[in-house]
Amino acid sequence: MRFDPETLKFDANGLVPAIAQDAETGDVLMMAWMNAESVARTLATGRVTYWSRSRQAFWVKGESSGHVQELVEMRLDCDRDCLLVQVRQTGPACHTNRRSCFYTAIREGEEVEIMAPMA
Amino acid sequence: MRFDPETLKFDANGLVPAIAQDAETGDVLMMAWMNAESVARTLATGRVTYWSRSRQAFWVKGESSGHVQELVEMRLDCDRDCLLVQVRQTGPACHTNRRSCFYTAIREGEEVEIMAPMA
Repeated sequence: MRFDPETLKFDANGLVPAIAQDAETGDVLMMAWMNAESVARTLATGRVTYWSRSRQAFWVKGESSGHVQELVEMRLDCDRDCLLVQVRQTGPACHTNRRSCFYTAIREGEEVEIMAPMA
Repeated sequence: MRFDPETLKFDANGLVPAIAQDAETGDVLMMAWMNAESVARTLATGRVTYWSRSRQAFWVKGESSGHVQELVEMRLDCDRDCLLVQVRQTGPACHTNRRSCFYTAIREGEEVEIMAPMA
């Protein structure tokens, strides 16, 4: 079946969560949001393109930092309301310069930093 | 630092997205939602517990199906508005009986089913 981004189930703001996963290591890198046009642009360009809720603008990941995400494969879930984008990540995915945004673990009730910023 | 679920950044409905990842294989299994009390219950019991938006009730994953998620580690992202739960998944995570909810890939513009229901 031909994929049409408009058939996704968007929230009240016209967005779906998109989980970025390192296609090679399987590490979950970040979660951000896409609207229908972001999805279409990501598929057309091979550059992962989110919708920035704070800036209300398209956000081509890495456009200013160089930390781009090259799309390997896009998947959607059973409810069509969440996307998984498998990517080749250049450098850190996180704005804190860490490889992944999920660098804080809860261990025995404490917040523990488990990942250092990249050199 | 002591972790307090109330310090997460919840959306207007008091929820954060929680990504479930197979702790062993790294596969992303599903995405669902948690409120502060779901987070607390998940940590206290070791059983991943979401908030069902459709039923407006706590949803102890696998409570009726037996397809439970045993918490291995909970992580939070840099913005404190998304969780990653690494789990030991019993059976399929998806209600369609597939291991993961992300069983549809977009390949050359077509929706392709890449995972069969478990036997």
